[in-house]
Amino acid sequence: MTVPILPGEHVDDLQRNHLQIIQNPKKFCFGMDAVLLSGFAAAGEDARVLDLCTGTGIIPILMSAKTDAGHFTALEIQHESADMARRSVLLNDLQEKIDIVEGDVKEAGSMFAAASFDVVTCNPPYMKGDHGLTNPGDAMAIARHEVLCTFADVAAAAGKLVRTGGHFYLVHRPFRLPELFAELARVHLEPKRMRLVYPYVDREPNMVLLDCVRGARPRLLVEKPLVVYAAPGVYTDEITGWYGY
Amino acid sequence: MTVPILPGEHVDDLQRNHLQIIQNPKKFCFGMDAVLLSGFAAAGEDARVLDLCTGTGIIPILMSAKTDAGHFTALEIQHESADMARRSVLLNDLQEKIDIVEGDVKEAGSMFAAASFDVVTCNPPYMKGDHGLTNPGDAMAIARHEVLCTFADVAAAAGKLVRTGGHFYLVHRPFRLPELFAELARVHLEPKRMRLVYPYVDREPNMVLLDCVRGARPRLLVEKPLVVYAAPGVYTDEITGWYGY
Repeated sequence: MTVPILPGEHVDDLQRNHLQIIQNPKKFCFGMDAVLLSGFAAAGEDARVLDLCTGTGIIPILMSAKTDAGHFTALEIQHESADMARRSVLLNDLQEKIDIVEGDVKEAGSMFAAASFDVVTCNPPYMKGDHGLTNPGDAMAIARHEVLCTFADVAAAAGKLVRTGGHFYLVHRPFRLPELFAELARVHLEPKRMRLVYPYVDREPNMVLLDCVRGARPRLLVEKPLVVYAAPGVYTDEITGWYGY
Repeated sequence: MTVPILPGEHVDDLQRNHLQIIQNPKKFCFGMDAVLLSGFAAAGEDARVLDLCTGTGIIPILMSAKTDAGHFTALEIQHESADMARRSVLLNDLQEKIDIVEGDVKEAGSMFAAASFDVVTCNPPYMKGDHGLTNPGDAMAIARHEVLCTFADVAAAAGKLVRTGGHFYLVHRPFRLPELFAELARVHLEPKRMRLVYPYVDREPNMVLLDCVRGARPRLLVEKPLVVYAAPGVYTDEITGWYGY
Protein backbone atom coordinates (compact mmCIF):
# COMPACT_ATOMS: atom_id res chain seq x y z
CA MET A 1 0.00 0.00 0.00
CA THR A 2 1.29 3.47 -0.83
CA VAL A 3 0.55 6.10 1.78
CA PRO A 4 0.49 9.65 0.41
CA ILE A 5 2.75 12.21 2.07
CA LEU A 6 1.56 15.79 1.55
CA PRO A 7 3.73 18.88 0.91
CA GLY A 8 5.30 20.16 4.14
CA GLU A 9 5.00 16.79 5.87
CA HIS A 10 7.91 14.73 7.20
CA VAL A 11 8.07 11.03 7.92
CA ASP A 12 9.99 10.63 11.17
CA ASP A 13 11.49 7.40 12.46
CA LEU A 14 10.36 6.71 16.04
CA GLN A 15 13.47 4.61 16.81
CA ARG A 16 11.32 1.79 18.04
CA ASN A 17 10.17 -1.33 16.15
CA HIS A 18 10.77 0.61 12.89
CA LEU A 19 7.72 2.74 13.67
CA GLN A 20 7.29 5.95 11.77
CA ILE A 21 5.09 9.01 12.14
CA ILE A 22 3.91 11.64 9.69
CA GLN A 23 4.21 15.18 11.05
CA ASN A 24 4.19 18.71 9.69
CA PRO A 25 6.74 20.85 11.56
CA LYS A 26 4.81 23.99 10.56
CA LYS A 27 1.77 22.64 12.43
CA PHE A 28 2.72 20.56 15.46
CA CYS A 29 5.28 17.90 16.27
CA PHE A 30 5.07 15.62 19.28
CA GLY A 31 7.36 16.39 22.19
CA MET A 32 9.03 14.64 25.07
CA ASP A 33 5.72 14.80 26.98
CA ALA A 34 4.16 12.31 24.55
CA VAL A 35 7.13 9.97 24.84
CA LEU A 36 7.05 10.12 28.63
CA LEU A 37 3.28 9.59 28.77
CA SER A 38 3.51 6.54 26.52
CA GLY A 39 6.23 5.15 28.80
CA PHE A 40 4.42 6.00 32.04
CA ALA A 41 1.11 4.52 30.91
CA ALA A 42 0.49 0.79 31.15
CA ALA A 43 -2.08 -1.37 29.40
CA GLY A 44 -2.63 -5.05 30.10
CA GLU A 45 -3.04 -7.86 27.60
CA ASP A 46 -6.01 -7.28 25.31
CA ALA A 47 -6.82 -3.99 27.03
CA ARG A 48 -9.09 -1.57 25.19
CA VAL A 49 -7.39 1.82 25.17
CA LEU A 50 -8.76 5.26 24.27
CA ASP A 51 -6.48 8.22 23.58
CA LEU A 52 -8.12 11.64 23.79
CA CYS A 53 -6.70 14.67 21.89
CA THR A 54 -4.48 12.25 19.99
CA GLY A 55 -3.13 14.78 17.45
CA THR A 56 -1.03 12.84 14.98
CA GLY A 57 -1.59 9.60 16.93
CA ILE A 58 1.78 9.44 18.64
CA ILE A 59 0.52 7.94 21.93
CA PRO A 60 -1.30 4.88 20.49
CA ILE A 61 1.46 4.31 17.94
CA LEU A 62 4.14 4.24 20.66
CA MET A 63 1.95 2.23 23.05
CA SER A 64 1.19 -0.34 20.36
CA ALA A 65 4.88 -1.23 20.45
CA LYS A 66 5.27 -1.13 24.21
CA THR A 67 2.13 -2.90 25.47
CA ASP A 68 0.03 -5.96 24.72
CA ALA A 69 -3.13 -3.87 24.54
CA GLY A 70 -5.77 -5.36 22.26
CA HIS A 71 -7.05 -2.24 20.60
CA PHE A 72 -6.57 1.53 20.53
CA THR A 73 -9.19 4.14 19.71
CA ALA A 74 -7.80 7.62 19.19
CA LEU A 75 -9.96 10.73 19.08
CA GLU A 76 -8.89 13.95 17.35
CA ILE A 77 -10.95 17.03 16.54
CA GLN A 78 -8.73 18.60 13.87
CA HIS A 79 -9.28 17.07 10.45
CA GLU A 80 -5.74 17.65 9.25
CA SER A 81 -4.18 15.98 12.33
CA ALA A 82 -6.64 13.07 12.23
CA ASP A 83 -5.79 12.58 8.55
CA MET A 84 -2.05 12.50 9.29
CA ALA A 85 -2.70 10.07 12.17
CA ARG A 86 -4.73 7.79 9.89
CA ARG A 87 -1.97 7.75 7.27
CA SER A 88 0.67 7.04 9.97
CA VAL A 89 -1.42 4.07 11.12
CA LEU A 90 -1.48 2.74 7.56
CA LEU A 91 2.24 3.43 7.11
CA ASN A 92 2.94 1.25 10.18
CA ASP A 93 0.40 -1.39 9.12
CA LEU A 94 -1.46 -0.88 12.40
CA GLN A 95 -4.97 -0.48 10.96
CA GLU A 96 -6.17 -3.64 12.75
CA LYS A 97 -4.96 -2.26 16.05
CA ILE A 98 -5.58 1.50 15.98
CA ASP A 99 -8.75 3.36 14.97
CA ILE A 100 -8.45 7.09 14.44
CA VAL A 101 -11.81 8.74 15.06
CA GLU A 102 -12.50 12.35 14.16
CA GLY A 103 -14.58 14.08 16.81
CA ASP A 104 -14.91 16.43 19.74
CA VAL A 105 -13.80 15.37 23.23
CA LYS A 106 -16.83 17.25 24.57
CA GLU A 107 -19.03 14.73 22.75
CA ALA A 108 -16.88 11.67 23.46
CA GLY A 109 -19.17 10.64 26.31
CA SER A 110 -21.95 9.98 23.83
CA MET A 111 -19.78 8.69 20.96
CA PHE A 112 -18.61 5.62 22.91
CA ALA A 113 -20.31 3.37 25.44
CA ALA A 114 -19.87 4.35 29.09
CA ALA A 115 -17.14 2.42 30.94
CA SER A 116 -16.12 0.68 27.71
CA PHE A 117 -12.36 1.26 28.00
CA ASP A 118 -9.79 -0.28 30.34
CA VAL A 119 -7.37 2.58 29.86
CA VAL A 120 -7.74 6.19 28.76
CA THR A 121 -4.71 8.34 27.94
CA CYS A 122 -4.43 12.06 27.17
CA ASN A 123 -1.75 14.63 26.41
CA PRO A 124 -4.12 17.61 26.42
CA PRO A 125 -3.57 21.28 25.62
CA TYR A 126 -1.85 22.75 28.71
CA MET A 127 -2.51 26.46 28.57
CA LYS A 128 -5.67 28.09 29.81
CA GLY A 129 -7.88 30.00 27.37
CA ASP A 130 -6.88 31.66 24.15
CA HIS A 131 -5.86 35.06 25.49
CA GLY A 132 -3.00 36.63 23.67
CA LEU A 133 -3.07 34.14 20.80
CA THR A 134 -2.73 35.79 17.42
CA ASN A 135 -4.20 32.77 15.63
CA PRO A 136 -6.43 30.89 18.07
CA GLY A 137 -7.71 28.79 15.16
CA ASP A 138 -4.38 27.39 14.00
CA ALA A 139 -3.29 23.83 14.63
CA MET A 140 -0.42 24.71 16.96
CA ALA A 141 -2.62 26.96 19.14
CA ILE A 142 -5.33 24.29 19.36
CA ALA A 143 -2.80 21.66 20.39
CA ARG A 144 -1.29 23.87 23.09
CA HIS A 145 -4.14 26.03 24.39
CA GLU A 146 -7.58 25.20 25.69
CA VAL A 147 -9.26 26.70 22.63
CA LEU A 148 -11.53 23.78 21.73
CA CYS A 149 -11.66 21.95 25.04
CA THR A 150 -10.81 22.49 28.72
CA PHE A 151 -9.33 20.04 31.18
CA ALA A 152 -12.80 19.70 32.69
CA ASP A 153 -14.01 18.40 29.29
CA VAL A 154 -11.14 15.91 29.11
CA ALA A 155 -11.68 14.66 32.68
CA ALA A 156 -15.44 14.33 32.13
CA ALA A 157 -14.88 12.20 29.01
CA ALA A 158 -12.25 10.03 30.71
CA GLY A 159 -14.38 9.59 33.82
CA LYS A 160 -17.35 8.46 31.80
CA LEU A 161 -15.55 6.18 29.37
CA VAL A 162 -13.09 4.30 31.57
CA ARG A 163 -14.42 1.36 33.56
CA THR A 164 -14.35 1.26 37.37
CA GLY A 165 -10.84 0.18 38.32
CA GLY A 166 -9.53 1.28 34.92
CA HIS A 167 -6.71 3.81 34.53
CA PHE A 168 -6.58 7.34 33.18
CA TYR A 169 -3.02 8.43 32.37
CA LEU A 170 -2.21 12.02 31.57
CA VAL A 171 0.64 14.48 31.28
CA HIS A 172 0.18 18.14 32.16
CA ARG A 173 1.89 21.17 33.67
CA PRO A 174 2.58 21.22 37.43
CA PHE A 175 1.19 24.74 37.81
CA ARG A 176 -2.31 23.37 37.21
CA LEU A 177 -2.16 20.50 39.74
CA PRO A 178 -4.81 21.79 42.19
CA GLU A 179 -7.29 22.29 39.35
CA LEU A 180 -6.42 18.91 37.80
CA PHE A 181 -7.08 17.14 41.12
CA ALA A 182 -10.36 19.02 41.56
CA GLU A 183 -11.65 18.07 38.09
CA LEU A 184 -10.49 14.46 38.48
CA ALA A 185 -12.25 14.18 41.86
CA ARG A 186 -15.47 15.44 40.30
CA VAL A 187 -15.56 12.36 38.03
CA HIS A 188 -14.23 9.82 40.57
CA LEU A 189 -10.80 9.51 38.99
CA GLU A 190 -8.49 9.11 41.99
CA PRO A 191 -4.83 10.10 41.47
CA LYS A 192 -2.84 7.06 42.62
CA ARG A 193 0.62 7.76 41.20
CA MET A 194 2.35 11.02 40.29
CA ARG A 195 5.73 11.67 38.80
CA LEU A 196 7.17 15.14 38.40
CA VAL A 197 9.58 15.73 35.52
CA TYR A 198 12.47 18.08 36.31
CA PRO A 199 14.69 19.41 33.47
CA TYR A 200 17.60 19.37 35.95
CA VAL A 201 17.72 18.04 39.50
CA ASP A 202 18.00 21.57 40.91
CA ARG A 203 15.26 23.11 38.79
CA GLU A 204 11.50 23.40 38.99
CA PRO A 205 9.53 20.59 37.32
CA ASN A 206 7.89 21.45 34.00
CA MET A 207 5.77 18.34 33.48
CA VAL A 208 3.69 16.06 35.68
CA LEU A 209 2.63 12.50 34.87
CA LEU A 210 -0.51 11.22 36.59
CA ASP A 211 -1.98 7.74 36.89
CA CYS A 212 -5.60 7.86 38.11
CA VAL A 213 -7.86 4.92 38.87
CA ARG A 214 -11.63 5.22 38.59
CA GLY A 215 -13.33 4.68 41.94
CA ALA A 216 -10.14 3.82 43.84
CA ARG A 217 -9.63 4.75 47.47
CA PRO A 218 -7.54 7.87 48.07
CA ARG A 219 -3.80 7.38 48.50
CA LEU A 220 -1.27 8.99 46.16
CA LEU A 221 2.22 7.64 45.61
CA VAL A 222 4.47 10.53 44.61
CA GLU A 223 7.38 8.85 42.86
CA LYS A 224 11.05 9.82 42.79
CA PRO A 225 11.92 12.78 40.54
CA LEU A 226 12.27 12.08 36.83
CA VAL A 227 15.26 14.20 35.83
CA VAL A 228 15.74 14.85 32.11
CA TYR A 229 19.26 16.24 31.72
CA ALA A 230 22.46 15.12 33.45
CA ALA A 231 24.26 18.01 31.72
CA PRO A 232 23.22 20.44 28.95
CA GLY A 233 22.27 18.31 25.94
CA VAL A 234 22.97 15.04 27.77
CA TYR A 235 19.98 12.96 28.82
CA THR A 236 20.06 11.07 32.11
CA ASP A 237 20.22 7.28 31.78
CA GLU A 238 16.61 7.05 32.84
CA ILE A 239 15.40 9.32 30.01
CA THR A 240 17.53 7.43 27.50
CA GLY A 241 15.77 4.30 28.77
CA TRP A 242 12.35 5.87 28.32
CA TYR A 243 13.15 6.74 24.73
CA GLY A 244 14.55 3.34 24.00
CA TYR A 245 12.15 0.94 25.71
CA MET B 1 12.49 33.77 86.59
CA THR B 2 12.83 30.08 87.30
CA VAL B 3 10.93 27.83 84.95
CA PRO B 4 10.10 24.39 86.39
CA ILE B 5 11.24 21.36 84.44
CA LEU B 6 9.21 18.23 85.26
CA PRO B 7 10.51 14.66 85.59
CA GLY B 8 11.09 13.06 82.19
CA GLU B 9 11.45 16.42 80.44
CA HIS B 10 14.57 17.63 78.59
CA VAL B 11 15.63 21.15 77.77
CA ASP B 12 16.98 21.07 74.22
CA ASP B 13 19.08 23.79 72.63
CA LEU B 14 17.61 24.85 69.25
CA GLN B 15 21.01 26.00 67.94
CA ARG B 16 19.54 29.36 67.04
CA ASN B 17 19.65 32.63 69.01
CA HIS B 18 20.22 30.51 72.16
CA LEU B 19 16.62 29.35 71.96
CA GLN B 20 15.63 26.31 74.00
CA ILE B 21 12.64 24.02 74.07
CA ILE B 22 11.21 21.77 76.75
CA GLN B 23 10.30 18.31 75.44
CA ASN B 24 9.51 14.90 76.86
CA PRO B 25 11.02 12.19 74.68
CA LYS B 26 8.50 9.69 76.04
CA LYS B 27 5.68 11.88 74.69
CA PHE B 28 6.63 13.68 71.48
CA CYS B 29 9.66 15.52 70.17
CA PHE B 30 9.59 17.85 67.20
CA GLY B 31 11.01 16.55 63.95
CA MET B 32 12.59 17.84 60.78
CA ASP B 33 9.10 18.64 59.46
CA ALA B 34 8.73 21.42 62.06
CA VAL B 35 12.16 22.85 61.22
CA LEU B 36 11.38 22.82 57.50
CA LEU B 37 7.95 24.38 57.97
CA SER B 38 9.41 27.19 60.10
CA GLY B 39 11.96 27.81 57.35
CA PHE B 40 9.47 27.58 54.48
CA ALA B 41 6.94 29.91 56.12
CA ALA B 42 7.37 33.66 55.90
CA ALA B 43 5.85 36.41 58.00
CA GLY B 44 6.22 40.12 57.31
CA GLU B 45 7.05 42.87 59.78
CA ASP B 46 4.47 43.08 62.56
CA ALA B 47 2.48 40.18 61.07
CA ARG B 48 -0.03 38.46 63.32
CA VAL B 49 0.64 34.73 63.15
CA LEU B 50 -1.48 31.79 64.34
CA ASP B 51 -0.02 28.29 64.73
CA LEU B 52 -2.55 25.45 64.88
CA CYS B 53 -1.73 22.11 66.56
CA THR B 54 1.36 23.77 68.02
CA GLY B 55 2.36 20.90 70.33
CA THR B 56 5.30 22.11 72.39
CA GLY B 57 5.35 25.43 70.48
CA ILE B 58 8.30 24.68 68.21
CA ILE B 59 6.97 26.57 65.15
CA PRO B 60 6.32 29.97 66.80
CA ILE B 61 9.54 29.68 68.84
CA LEU B 62 11.63 29.08 65.71
CA MET B 63 9.70 31.67 63.66
CA SER B 64 10.17 34.29 66.39
CA ALA B 65 13.90 34.10 65.65
CA LYS B 66 13.58 34.01 61.87
CA THR B 67 10.90 36.61 61.13
CA ASP B 68 9.91 40.12 62.15
CA ALA B 69 6.36 38.98 62.91
CA GLY B 70 4.67 41.09 65.56
CA HIS B 71 2.86 38.41 67.50
CA PHE B 72 2.28 34.66 67.57
CA THR B 73 -0.78 32.86 68.89
CA ALA B 74 -0.35 29.11 69.24
CA LEU B 75 -3.24 26.73 69.79
CA GLU B 76 -2.85 23.30 71.41
CA ILE B 77 -5.52 20.89 72.61
CA GLN B 78 -3.40 18.71 74.92
CA HIS B 79 -2.91 20.24 78.33
CA GLU B 80 0.48 18.68 78.93
CA SER B 81 1.90 19.90 75.61
CA ALA B 82 0.40 23.37 76.05
CA ASP B 83 1.96 23.54 79.50
CA MET B 84 5.39 22.57 78.15
CA ALA B 85 4.96 25.16 75.37
CA ARG B 86 4.07 27.87 77.91
CA ARG B 87 7.14 27.07 79.99
CA SER B 88 9.37 27.09 76.88
CA VAL B 89 8.02 30.55 76.03
CA LEU B 90 8.95 31.76 79.51
CA LEU B 91 12.35 30.04 79.35
CA ASN B 92 13.09 32.01 76.17
CA ASP B 93 11.61 35.23 77.57
CA LEU B 94 9.15 35.35 74.66
CA GLN B 95 5.98 35.88 76.69
CA GLU B 96 5.42 39.31 75.06
CA LYS B 97 5.61 37.73 71.63
CA ILE B 98 4.00 34.29 71.89
CA ASP B 99 0.65 33.36 73.47
CA ILE B 100 -0.01 29.68 74.05
CA VAL B 101 -3.76 29.05 74.02
CA GLU B 102 -5.26 25.76 75.13
CA GLY B 103 -8.15 24.75 72.91
CA ASP B 104 -9.61 22.65 70.12
CA VAL B 105 -8.87 23.44 66.46
CA LYS B 106 -12.49 22.52 65.71
CA GLU B 107 -13.56 25.51 67.82
CA ALA B 108 -10.77 27.86 66.68
CA GLY B 109 -13.14 29.56 64.23
CA SER B 110 -15.18 30.91 67.13
CA MET B 111 -12.27 31.47 69.54
CA PHE B 112 -10.64 34.13 67.36
CA ALA B 113 -12.05 36.84 65.09
CA ALA B 114 -12.52 35.85 61.46
CA ALA B 115 -9.72 36.99 59.11
CA SER B 116 -7.73 38.30 62.08
CA PHE B 117 -4.38 36.71 61.18
CA ASP B 118 -1.93 37.53 58.39
CA VAL B 119 -0.34 34.08 58.54
CA VAL B 120 -1.52 30.70 59.77
CA THR B 121 0.89 27.77 60.12
CA CYS B 122 0.25 24.12 60.92
CA ASN B 123 2.18 20.87 61.28
CA PRO B 124 -0.89 18.67 61.76
CA PRO B 125 -1.24 14.97 62.52
CA TYR B 126 -0.55 13.16 59.24
CA MET B 127 -2.19 9.77 59.57
CA LYS B 128 -5.85 9.12 58.93
CA GLY B 129 -8.04 7.84 61.76
CA ASP B 130 -6.99 5.88 64.78
CA HIS B 131 -7.21 2.38 63.37
CA GLY B 132 -4.62 0.03 64.73
CA LEU B 133 -3.53 2.38 67.51
CA THR B 134 -3.09 0.60 70.82
CA ASN B 135 -3.34 3.88 72.75
CA PRO B 136 -5.35 6.36 70.69
CA GLY B 137 -5.48 8.68 73.69
CA ASP B 138 -1.74 9.06 74.27
CA ALA B 139 0.18 12.19 73.36
CA MET B 140 2.24 10.59 70.59
CA ALA B 141 -0.84 9.11 68.90
CA ILE B 142 -2.70 12.43 69.07
CA ALA B 143 0.25 14.28 67.55
CA ARG B 144 0.60 11.79 64.68
CA HIS B 145 -2.92 10.54 63.96
CA GLU B 146 -6.16 12.34 63.24
CA VAL B 147 -7.64 11.29 66.56
CA LEU B 148 -8.81 14.69 67.76
CA CYS B 149 -8.97 16.60 64.47
CA THR B 150 -8.95 15.91 60.73
CA PHE B 151 -7.28 17.91 57.98
CA ALA B 152 -10.73 19.24 57.08
CA ASP B 153 -10.94 20.75 60.59
CA VAL B 154 -7.50 22.33 60.24
CA ALA B 155 -8.27 23.77 56.78
CA ALA B 156 -11.64 25.11 57.95
CA ALA B 157 -9.98 26.93 60.87
CA ALA B 158 -7.17 28.31 58.70
CA GLY B 159 -9.61 29.41 55.97
CA LYS B 160 -11.75 31.28 58.45
CA LEU B 161 -9.00 32.89 60.51
CA VAL B 162 -6.52 34.08 57.85
CA ARG B 163 -7.30 37.31 56.05
CA THR B 164 -7.86 37.48 52.29
CA GLY B 165 -4.40 37.58 50.72
CA GLY B 166 -2.88 36.08 53.86
CA HIS B 167 -0.87 32.85 53.85
CA PHE B 168 -1.50 29.39 55.25
CA TYR B 169 1.70 27.34 55.47
CA LEU B 170 1.62 23.65 56.20
CA VAL B 171 3.66 20.48 56.07
CA HIS B 172 2.06 17.11 55.37
CA ARG B 173 2.58 13.77 53.68
CA PRO B 174 2.58 13.63 49.86
CA PHE B 175 0.22 10.64 49.80
CA ARG B 176 -2.61 12.90 50.94
CA LEU B 177 -2.10 15.68 48.35
CA PRO B 178 -5.36 15.24 46.41
CA GLU B 179 -7.37 15.38 49.64
CA LEU B 180 -5.35 18.36 50.95
CA PHE B 181 -6.03 20.30 47.75
CA ALA B 182 -9.74 19.43 47.91
CA GLU B 183 -10.10 20.61 51.52
CA LEU B 184 -8.07 23.76 50.86
CA ALA B 185 -10.23 24.60 47.82
CA ARG B 186 -13.37 24.26 49.93
CA VAL B 187 -12.22 27.19 52.11
CA HIS B 188 -10.67 29.31 49.32
CA LEU B 189 -7.07 28.60 50.29
CA GLU B 190 -5.29 28.43 46.94
CA PRO B 191 -2.01 26.45 46.86
CA LYS B 192 0.52 28.84 45.30
CA ARG B 193 3.84 27.18 46.13
CA MET B 194 4.71 23.56 46.84
CA ARG B 195 8.00 21.94 47.77
CA LEU B 196 8.45 18.20 47.97
CA VAL B 197 11.04 16.90 50.43
CA TYR B 198 12.99 13.86 49.23
CA PRO B 199 15.18 11.88 51.68
CA TYR B 200 17.53 11.18 48.76
CA VAL B 201 17.43 12.51 45.19
CA ASP B 202 16.47 9.08 43.84
CA ARG B 203 13.80 8.30 46.43
CA GLU B 204 10.13 9.08 46.87
CA PRO B 205 9.33 12.29 48.78
CA ASN B 206 8.11 11.85 52.35
CA MET B 207 7.05 15.41 53.13
CA VAL B 208 5.36 18.23 51.26
CA LEU B 209 5.49 21.92 52.16
CA LEU B 210 2.58 24.06 50.96
CA ASP B 211 2.12 27.82 50.83
CA CYS B 212 -1.54 28.74 50.23
CA VAL B 213 -3.00 32.21 49.80
CA ARG B 214 -6.58 32.95 50.72
CA GLY B 215 -8.62 34.02 47.71
CA ALA B 216 -5.68 34.02 45.26
CA ARG B 217 -6.09 33.07 41.62
CA PRO B 218 -5.08 29.50 40.76
CA ARG B 219 -1.47 28.94 39.69
CA LEU B 220 0.86 26.64 41.61
CA LEU B 221 4.63 26.95 41.53
CA VAL B 222 6.13 23.53 42.19
CA GLU B 223 9.64 24.29 43.39
CA LYS B 224 12.85 22.33 42.88
CA PRO B 225 13.24 19.19 45.02
CA LEU B 226 14.39 19.67 48.59
CA VAL B 227 16.80 16.79 49.13
CA VAL B 228 17.68 15.93 52.74
CA TYR B 229 20.69 13.61 52.58
CA ALA B 230 23.75 13.82 50.33
CA ALA B 231 24.91 10.49 51.79
CA PRO B 232 23.71 8.40 54.74
CA GLY B 233 23.92 10.62 57.82
CA VAL B 234 25.19 13.61 55.83
CA TYR B 235 22.78 16.48 55.24
CA THR B 236 22.83 18.36 51.94
CA ASP B 237 24.10 21.93 52.15
CA GLU B 238 20.57 23.19 51.70
CA ILE B 239 19.28 21.28 54.74
CA THR B 240 22.24 22.44 56.83
CA GLY B 241 21.24 25.95 55.80
CA TRP B 242 17.62 25.41 56.83
CA TYR B 243 18.75 24.24 60.26
CA GLY B 244 21.14 27.10 60.66
CA TYR B 245 19.26 30.13 59.40
